[in-house]
Amino acid sequence: MRVGVLTGGGDCPGLNAALRAIVRAAAHAEPLEVIGFRDGWRGPLDGDTRPLGASDVLDVLDRGGTLLGSSRTNPISMDDGIDRVRSGLVAAGCDALIAIGGEDTLGVAHALAEAGVAVVGVPKTIDNDLSATDVTIGHDTAVAIATEAVDRVRTTAESHHRAIVVEVMGRHAGWIALRSGIAGGADAILIPEQPFDIEEVVARCARVTARGRAPIVVVAEGAVPQGGEEVLTRAGTDAFGHVQLGGVGDHVAAEIGRATGVSTRAVVLGHLQRGGTPTAYDRVLGTRFGLHAVDAVRDGAWGSMVALRGDEIVRAPLADGVGKLKTVPPEQYAEALALLD
Amino acid sequence: MRVGVLTGGGDCPGLNAALRAIVRAAAHAEPLEVIGFRDGWRGPLDGDTRPLGASDVLDVLDRGGTLLGSSRTNPISMDDGIDRVRSGLVAAGCDALIAIGGEDTLGVAHALAEAGVAVVGVPKTIDNDLSATDVTIGHDTAVAIATEAVDRVRTTAESHHRAIVVEVMGRHAGWIALRSGIAGGADAILIPEQPFDIEEVVARCARVTARGRAPIVVVAEGAVPQGGEEVLTRAGTDAFGHVQLGGVGDHVAAEIGRATGVSTRAVVLGHLQRGGTPTAYDRVLGTRFGLHAVDAVRDGAWGSMVALRGDEIVRAPLADGVGKLKTVPPEQYAEALALLD
Amino acid sequence: MRVGVLTGGGDCPGLNAALRAIVRAAAHAEPLEVIGFRDGWRGPLDGDTRPLGASDVLDVLDRGGTLLGSSRTNPISMDDGIDRVRSGLVAAGCDALIAIGGEDTLGVAHALAEAGVAVVGVPKTIDNDLSATDVTIGHDTAVAIATEAVDRVRTTAESHHRAIVVEVMGRHAGWIALRSGIAGGADAILIPEQPFDIEEVVARCARVTARGRAPIVVVAEGAVPQGGEEVLTRAGTDAFGHVQLGGVGDHVAAEIGRATGVSTRAVVLGHLQRGGTPTAYDRVLGTRFGLHAVDAVRDGAWGSMVALRGDEIVRAPLADGVGKLKTVPPEQYAEALALLD
Amino acid sequence: MRVGVLTGGGDCPGLNAALRAIVRAAAHAEPLEVIGFRDGWRGPLDGDTRPLGASDVLDVLDRGGTLLGSSRTNPISMDDGIDRVRSGLVAAGCDALIAIGGEDTLGVAHALAEAGVAVVGVPKTIDNDLSATDVTIGHDTAVAIATEAVDRVRTTAESHHRAIVVEVMGRHAGWIALRSGIAGGADAILIPEQPFDIEEVVARCARVTARGRAPIVVVAEGAVPQGGEEVLTRAGTDAFGHVQLGGVGDHVAAEIGRATGVSTRAVVLGHLQRGGTPTAYDRVLGTRFGLHAVDAVRDGAWGSMVALRGDEIVRAPLADGVGKLKTVPPEQYAEALALLD
Repeated sequence: MRVGVLTGGGDCPGLNAALRAIVRAAAHAEPLEVIGFRDGWRGPLDGDTRPLGASDVLDVLDRGGTLLGSSRTNPISMDDGIDRVRSGLVAAGCDALIAIGGEDTLGVAHALAEAGVAVVGVPKTIDNDLSATDVTIGHDTAVAIATEAVDRVRTTAESHHRAIVVEVMGRHAGWIALRSGIAGGADAILIPEQPFDIEEVVARCARVTARGRAPIVVVAEGAVPQGGEEVLTRAGTDAFGHVQLGGVGDHVAAEIGRATGVSTRAVVLGHLQRGGTPTAYDRVLGTRFGLHAVDAVRDGAWGSMVALRGDEIVRAPLADGVGKLKTVPPEQYAEALALLD
Repeated sequence: MRVGVLTGGGDCPGLNAALRAIVRAAAHAEPLEVIGFRDGWRGPLDGDTRPLGASDVLDVLDRGGTLLGSSRTNPISMDDGIDRVRSGLVAAGCDALIAIGGEDTLGVAHALAEAGVAVVGVPKTIDNDLSATDVTIGHDTAVAIATEAVDRVRTTAESHHRAIVVEVMGRHAGWIALRSGIAGGADAILIPEQPFDIEEVVARCARVTARGRAPIVVVAEGAVPQGGEEVLTRAGTDAFGHVQLGGVGDHVAAEIGRATGVSTRAVVLGHLQRGGTPTAYDRVLGTRFGLHAVDAVRDGAWGSMVALRGDEIVRAPLADGVGKLKTVPPEQYAEALALLD
Repeated sequence: MRVGVLTGGGDCPGLNAALRAIVRAAAHAEPLEVIGFRDGWRGPLDGDTRPLGASDVLDVLDRGGTLLGSSRTNPISMDDGIDRVRSGLVAAGCDALIAIGGEDTLGVAHALAEAGVAVVGVPKTIDNDLSATDVTIGHDTAVAIATEAVDRVRTTAESHHRAIVVEVMGRHAGWIALRSGIAGGADAILIPEQPFDIEEVVARCARVTARGRAPIVVVAEGAVPQGGEEVLTRAGTDAFGHVQLGGVGDHVAAEIGRATGVSTRAVVLGHLQRGGTPTAYDRVLGTRFGLHAVDAVRDGAWGSMVALRGDEIVRAPLADGVGKLKTVPPEQYAEALALLD
Repeated sequence: MRVGVLTGGGDCPGLNAALRAIVRAAAHAEPLEVIGFRDGWRGPLDGDTRPLGASDVLDVLDRGGTLLGSSRTNPISMDDGIDRVRSGLVAAGCDALIAIGGEDTLGVAHALAEAGVAVVGVPKTIDNDLSATDVTIGHDTAVAIATEAVDRVRTTAESHHRAIVVEVMGRHAGWIALRSGIAGGADAILIPEQPFDIEEVVARCARVTARGRAPIVVVAEGAVPQGGEEVLTRAGTDAFGHVQLGGVGDHVAAEIGRATGVSTRAVVLGHLQRGGTPTAYDRVLGTRFGLHAVDAVRDGAWGSMVALRGDEIVRAPLADGVGKLKTVPPEQYAEALALLD
């Protein structure tokens, strides 16, 4: 039996741990042959494969990214995309596919399963916005990196009596902001799920400043002010004539600075959050997901994805994982508010 | 209402996050007064208290240890210990107590609750061996530190064609060894729950060596060879003719070296595993546990402890938490075996 | 004898180590009284002081920033600024001053010394652009942080076949870019001292891409293209109507993307580079500088600054330190070029 | 022209950076062919070589250890060892050799040079005990790891009112202990160069304890008590009645515990200090040493070694590097004493 594997969407730390576990688990008992598709769905679409054996996954546990490459190629948005992927799998001689990815990638996996393809999913996204699993590969590392950033800017903010706004990833879900904000002791945490009142943010920063401390705000890139997104959608032009859009972090920093008179800076973490050595947590999670994905293949549990529940790995229907985004529930956001002094 | 707080047993990263959250949450709504008992149960026994207010918990999120101090003082092993603790709480004017600790500390909390004291528990232990919660404060940091150690020794082992044995904490439960072993890609993981066959460990190391790689073994301090512990109690003689007795790490290293002829070293992590900056994960967990402990106090949920289930914080009876140790289940140990190549 | 201490200019990791060492060394032999001025030169100008004793410097070794606060207040740009600082020192009862800072702060210290004030300097700046010393406090930590950033973005760049440009600090000197670029294995390093040929940068990135690798470029904020700075000085307007200027990192990324067709992103490290826990190197350097500054005070070595030469701490005239910027010499930049494959 | 390269003695972080730089620099201008000898001097003795090209040194900058392997094989202690190495070099077709190592390895290199072999040296050792260079490859990383260990144990010591002794490497020179002790804020630093008075160490710990703090002692493995080493060779009896002999860390911990009544623990870092990701400092140093070693080969500067002086790389006679150990001078140890409060 030959199993194809691919990683789709944005890369994240922990993917290589999953690939290593898949290769190793496949070699046990009745061995499965594993081949890798390069760059997510581009692989089966273009017939771009590579063998994936024991020697390919040596020394990859502590490596971020994905040795298979990734892309945002999405067959669903193409004519006959799902059919073309199916043909690509057949052409590569695959009896089954393990698709590792986030909402988009697993959405394609779900469509393939609906179309009768033998597919199993593994959930990853630094944003942690997939349903049906407690957490996804890559999220813990992203939170760790963002927390370290908050720690670092704090000492500068205190020394210079400044306010600093840290913009983290999270277009639709505020998990990274929530957790790094709590871990870093932020004075305000702004997430997409809860449109923010800039007056309130400013007032809170002013209170912190009045106590002789330096306010730190963590804001998810997808956070929006109350009253709609339009404030964030005015296009600007940068110094080189390229049209661009300041992010919400810059906006919030500008507003705090204007309203409080305190020198305020924004730091945008961007791609720093998704690369580099995975935390131990993500290595263990990726490894366990990989092992159980192979079990699911052996069991013919097509259309399912592996998921963490408590400290067990279970299976969930792909439909549950991608049906709706897992956003921060109000009661967890309330926890952040309960911490404010 | 006045609430006492104490931290008992071995310290760990994340305790200060819990204390900070307790202080902050207590200041909201109907404010509670919080006082700290010093050094675990020694505090109420000796009437040793300190106020615990907003200024005491500034800048502690990234600090390991516990600002209240800790001890292994255990009232259960004393005559009238439970009564004396109760009297100490009354003398300090406490209407309720939040006890943060592991099996021993929460065991005392449970006994107090049985005796009618208004007590709520918060689970912490780097060993992660408390039932009723997915994980305890401090465990994630300990796994992270142990994993970094495995990463570090690996490069030396490879460069010198050596085997290295890393001994980590875990007297009765192998969680740290299991997870750091998986995250670090160990060739063998030895845990208390599964007496090990030294012949098998040696054979595995020999296979790794035969492939030109350097074997890494992670062993929990409480792991025992098949056939009982007596093998570990024979006094040995070191290279200089001095009689000595090592822990299980030294034992396993000696056996591997003797049987394979490969130069083999043991590294004992010891106290490195429990100190220093907590991971973001432990800061968030400690914070959430602290917040929910205050909720439990407000709700009069005496005799309960806070616990993580999935990504929610719930309450569980203290009896469930301390009734029996949470050890590594065979199916999770089997995951580690499935990874071996 | 009473000694005043201040920290001026941008904060950096290692300042607290210097302050701790000053306090501790001052308490030995014939004890000196130490007082701190808050926020750099604003302290003596405004008469804003605080006592600085043993208890103030506990637990600060691993803290970034400066417990005295800092500012960019510069008396030289004020009418009678130097006289006013001198009066402030007299009013505070100071017999001598230790000024810790970079070019601006030590420039003021030099002017004070010329005016007969008993002053000693300690060199700090993450940019490492002070003459007369091998290195300044804060530089090693900044290089470490920037290197970690390069490591992190590399895995993402490889996984997505992208080019990534990392913009680091260094307005006039490229030390951070040079060293983090070498440590991170960058494919191009652009520094202020060597105007860059964008065609050459693009060509090099294209060669890297042609080998199937992802190009990483490290650029100092002060790097300029050959042909002058004007390309970087066109003002833009951001999404919120604020006038702003895209940095050189954005510019280089846009050019690489345009010319190679490879998706290219810029990451601007900004304030992440100057905060947080200092490296061991910076803690040792700050400590030694602090100790020797107290020696210089005891010896009446006014007008001097402490400096590292090899592994010894020596004294140099302040005039030498601030006379001209220490920029990257051509032969050290040539080292970076010699590494290119 | 064909150049052989080898790494001898204990491995350390930064060696791969040097190898990468050698390979890359050799490919420029008039290209040199580079071959690697495996496992230090064992390589030329056994004729064990491997090609060393561009693809071998990809992705190694952040890897500890040495991709060539190492050993403590020392030809000087063999009959005709130097001649046999010379023959091995000839047999491998090498016109010159770059030997990367510490005192032993460079001692052999010196002997070879004396015997007319075209050899150039590169200094590495975590202990930093080579003369003629400000610092050696690997030292900075070792100090960083030891400092992190001191930071970690401190929080446990404070929480439990314990004393903790950290034993670090340094058999003949105390550089690691000195610098990690200063960086970690140790209360006592014991180094081989200065036999210690255990009474004084105990008294100092007692003073720290009396102030309500937890004493931390950093001790180099080669530190000895005043009065000679015999105190360390008495077999002791541990808490369980087993006869054992510890290192100096255990000895000092036992004495502190006995004399002060404070619970005292020893942590022995051992191999943790020499592995894993190199600091940015060591990556830059290793890289620059590698580049300049190739320059030295091109210049025919046989019998020299590269060395850091200030921020320049210079050449020094191998004889100077290995003539006598670079130990901690009394005035630098005095700095540590001046810090004590």
